[in-house]
Amino acid sequence: MAHIKDALGMTDEDFGSRHEVGDEPVPAELPGGLSDTQLTPLAAMVGAENVKTDSYSRLQLAYGKTMADLIRLRKGVVENLPAAVVCPRSRDDVRALVRHCHEARLPITVFGGGTSVTRGVECMRGGISLDMRVHMRRILELNRVNQTVTVEPGIYGPALEEALNRAPQRFGAQHRYTCGHYPQSFEESTVRVWVVTRGAGQGSTYYGKIEQMVRAQHYITPAGELRTEPYPACSMGPDVDQLMIGSEGAYGILVAVTLQIFRHRPESRAYFSYIFPSWEQAVDAARETLQAEVGRPSTFRLSDPEETQVGLKHYGVEGTLLDTAMRMRGYRPGERCLLLGAADGYPTRSALVKRQVGRIARAHGAMSATGWVTRLWEKGRYADPYLRDDLHDYGVILDTLECAAPWDRVMQVWRAVRGYCKARPRTVCMSHMSHVYPQGTNLYFIFAAKMTELEDYLAFQAGILDTIRQSGAALSHHHGIGKMIAPWLPDALGPEQMELLRAIKRHLDPHNIMNPGGTLALDLPESEQRSVDDAG
Amino acid sequence: MAHIKDALGMTDEDFGSRHEVGDEPVPAELPGGLSDTQLTPLAAMVGAENVKTDSYSRLQLAYGKTMADLIRLRKGVVENLPAAVVCPRSRDDVRALVRHCHEARLPITVFGGGTSVTRGVECMRGGISLDMRVHMRRILELNRVNQTVTVEPGIYGPALEEALNRAPQRFGAQHRYTCGHYPQSFEESTVRVWVVTRGAGQGSTYYGKIEQMVRAQHYITPAGELRTEPYPACSMGPDVDQLMIGSEGAYGILVAVTLQIFRHRPESRAYFSYIFPSWEQAVDAARETLQAEVGRPSTFRLSDPEETQVGLKHYGVEGTLLDTAMRMRGYRPGERCLLLGAADGYPTRSALVKRQVGRIARAHGAMSATGWVTRLWEKGRYADPYLRDDLHDYGVILDTLECAAPWDRVMQVWRAVRGYCKARPRTVCMSHMSHVYPQGTNLYFIFAAKMTELEDYLAFQAGILDTIRQSGAALSHHHGIGKMIAPWLPDALGPEQMELLRAIKRHLDPHNIMNPGGTLALDLPESEQRSVDDAG
Repeated sequence: MAHIKDALGMTDEDFGSRHEVGDEPVPAELPGGLSDTQLTPLAAMVGAENVKTDSYSRLQLAYGKTMADLIRLRKGVVENLPAAVVCPRSRDDVRALVRHCHEARLPITVFGGGTSVTRGVECMRGGISLDMRVHMRRILELNRVNQTVTVEPGIYGPALEEALNRAPQRFGAQHRYTCGHYPQSFEESTVRVWVVTRGAGQGSTYYGKIEQMVRAQHYITPAGELRTEPYPACSMGPDVDQLMIGSEGAYGILVAVTLQIFRHRPESRAYFSYIFPSWEQAVDAARETLQAEVGRPSTFRLSDPEETQVGLKHYGVEGTLLDTAMRMRGYRPGERCLLLGAADGYPTRSALVKRQVGRIARAHGAMSATGWVTRLWEKGRYADPYLRDDLHDYGVILDTLECAAPWDRVMQVWRAVRGYCKARPRTVCMSHMSHVYPQGTNLYFIFAAKMTELEDYLAFQAGILDTIRQSGAALSHHHGIGKMIAPWLPDALGPEQMELLRAIKRHLDPHNIMNPGGTLALDLPESEQRSVDDAG
Repeated sequence: MAHIKDALGMTDEDFGSRHEVGDEPVPAELPGGLSDTQLTPLAAMVGAENVKTDSYSRLQLAYGKTMADLIRLRKGVVENLPAAVVCPRSRDDVRALVRHCHEARLPITVFGGGTSVTRGVECMRGGISLDMRVHMRRILELNRVNQTVTVEPGIYGPALEEALNRAPQRFGAQHRYTCGHYPQSFEESTVRVWVVTRGAGQGSTYYGKIEQMVRAQHYITPAGELRTEPYPACSMGPDVDQLMIGSEGAYGILVAVTLQIFRHRPESRAYFSYIFPSWEQAVDAARETLQAEVGRPSTFRLSDPEETQVGLKHYGVEGTLLDTAMRMRGYRPGERCLLLGAADGYPTRSALVKRQVGRIARAHGAMSATGWVTRLWEKGRYADPYLRDDLHDYGVILDTLECAAPWDRVMQVWRAVRGYCKARPRTVCMSHMSHVYPQGTNLYFIFAAKMTELEDYLAFQAGILDTIRQSGAALSHHHGIGKMIAPWLPDALGPEQMELLRAIKRHLDPHNIMNPGGTLALDLPESEQRSVDDAG
């Protein structure tokens, strides 16, 4: 907060009064509802109690969590509402609903947890929003032999994790398990959104992205059901699982998924943190760590100088003896970079990985900042997003965009995005890598500025996306595309890949009822597509 | 050999004379050639010297390496020949050829190395066979920063591996590299077939299957070109890479691929082998090794009792002091199971993995059989397939089929396939797992019997495939589907997945010129599809 206040040139006075806090009462009547003839068959299918048309229910499922959503809510801009909210009780309900909506040409958008930061849940063409969280949140099977769990997609992260951690008590299992997937949205997101957006958790460097964890899926589409088998691997043609993962509700509705799970051994987690003299040396160390075949850490979070400065303040390191020691040894604020991390697995394994990370870090000029800093980060790791609302009370936007790039493009992406943000006066731009691979990394950008108008914000954001695209990075590493990034997708994939995705769409959903209105640019008019020169 | 001789009840006399050795001269005239009006444009595109119509060239590319191919060749059965062999010089040539063949409705089948054991290379509808090995075998880029290599698809395994091992000399790199992919066909296969069949090497337990190694691809299809970017991971909709990998030449032609590579450290490879008292205990140990989060071995090859018996003889262990020690300690022939393995990576990592495998093996009743046995296996590991031809000189078929299953189906699959083979008198059935995952394993079956007629062989093989399917296993773990297993695919995937794959086919190849005639059952008449009751 202090850094942001300084960087944005704000005074205490600016924090004196809040604006547009958005606590006006919900209007009793909202536009775009369904007629009784439309509602009756829905109620017959799932029960009247599972069809909601009141304003509160409809508004609640309207938006996700990108800054554009927050600004619109505060300004009372109500658009792209579901005409009704439907809570299916089972896959039979979903089957009936998809068949009916296909015939009635009624759009279906699925609501997993509402944590989308890409406008994934918005009902651009009205229709119904399926709320999977109400009933479809059961654990269907814990398979101890295969070490997998099969769940309904509406289960929340904490509910799943708690059941797995307590597997001996809950299922009579011999071991405790973990899902290994802890996105920042963990507390508010469901398995569904992890899968359909190709999400990643904060331990993905070891546990993998969700697309590596999925072992089998069941989707219901207008063209029938796709149900894959839990083979550990196979060689049976194109991978239908990987075609459906990331389809963001535009190809069909996920009704069950089998995920691999892992032994839960919090006691053997080995924490470490290092401070590097410069971003360049830190990036080289990250690359070497992943390429040296020493085993992968689970958490590996490397902050650039600006984020390091904020982080050290935020974690309470600034001004401590550790800080003094770092400064005395030449790790200067504004240049130094903080690496937080941990290794998981069998105790000897996690200890070995920790030692090897340390060896490589020191060879790149780093000194240990102890495991204590990482523990501090871990404690508060799900809390940061909540700060955003408070800041916006005082006219500050705080938002994020993230991408991924091969190692040989990482510095150019980082410089370009940072350069774009910093060209705007009084703008914070912090970044880190948190999902690291032998062949590259993600880059996660957090930006803040004084800004209250939606158009200003959208123009600023579009510039960042242009820059990401131009510098040769993937448009998203784990947030998906949704309707927000969709304008950039055709240019990034090229016309042939886009036509392939559209051909699949036409086959699975010929009437375009599944999350229509721009998702993955499948039905986005050419006039709304955005093209940039690609340096990649 | 001795085991096979005993098991098949053969005498020395049976080995007295060879039959149908297939060394008749190649006929000067073969059916199904192209007319001059058809040949002229091809020669204009790629140069006359790169269009071959002589019998030897056409025959050479006609078949792969499944037993049905060998039997047909020996019997002089010549079918499904290419009308001409074309050797493209570059991706520009491929582009021109695909455009021309699309317009002229001329089928294209691609020949990678001819090691297909699923009838992948046969030109069922004639047309041209593209021989990628002649010109399109260049290394396009070794990217040291990203640790990737980009190659043309016609490069052979040994050529690629040698270049990577000698990267300091060849490319001035700091490190030596390995592709980490050593299929049994290594010496005779090219990168193309690894990719388009979803292949796996003998180190896949650590290095991964080929679909995990591919970072970017370039395909030329009748509907245009698909070119993906080398992002380490991304969240940009369905995974087009994973849709094209495994498409077995039916969706388009691979003209370039970027693979991740690994540090080459043969000096730190840690070898081990263990003998288990029973198959059940050995399988449990394999599962625990992969689930315990101790790090993965690269080679992990566990033989069942019948294969163990043959293996110990073959590697020269039978009758040694080691064998005596094993027998004295109760590891009985016919029950005991041999595990061969090695761990790779940074020296401390490979040593740790070796120790942990040992700890788990001993906890499951095993004793060490030393790393020496694994070294013996490694030395001869590419030689076994060559034995097949010699055996068939004496009327013996020796062939393999392989599948994959989650752990909770492994024993039922093994029992069912073994039961089927052993129900036939004097039939050898050996099996092993060689690609092991936390969620399951492959199972590789080697069978041998006295058999000379093609119909007998095909009927026997069909029974094994029925059994694999029935017992809930994947139809293939790494050999692909080709035209041979295609009849079983629609039943295994179900009509919805098949229709999805066909919709993609119609989009990418509307005139069905790409490897037509049964590949992946995309155009297989219903009458030729095979259906079994699924227990999975």
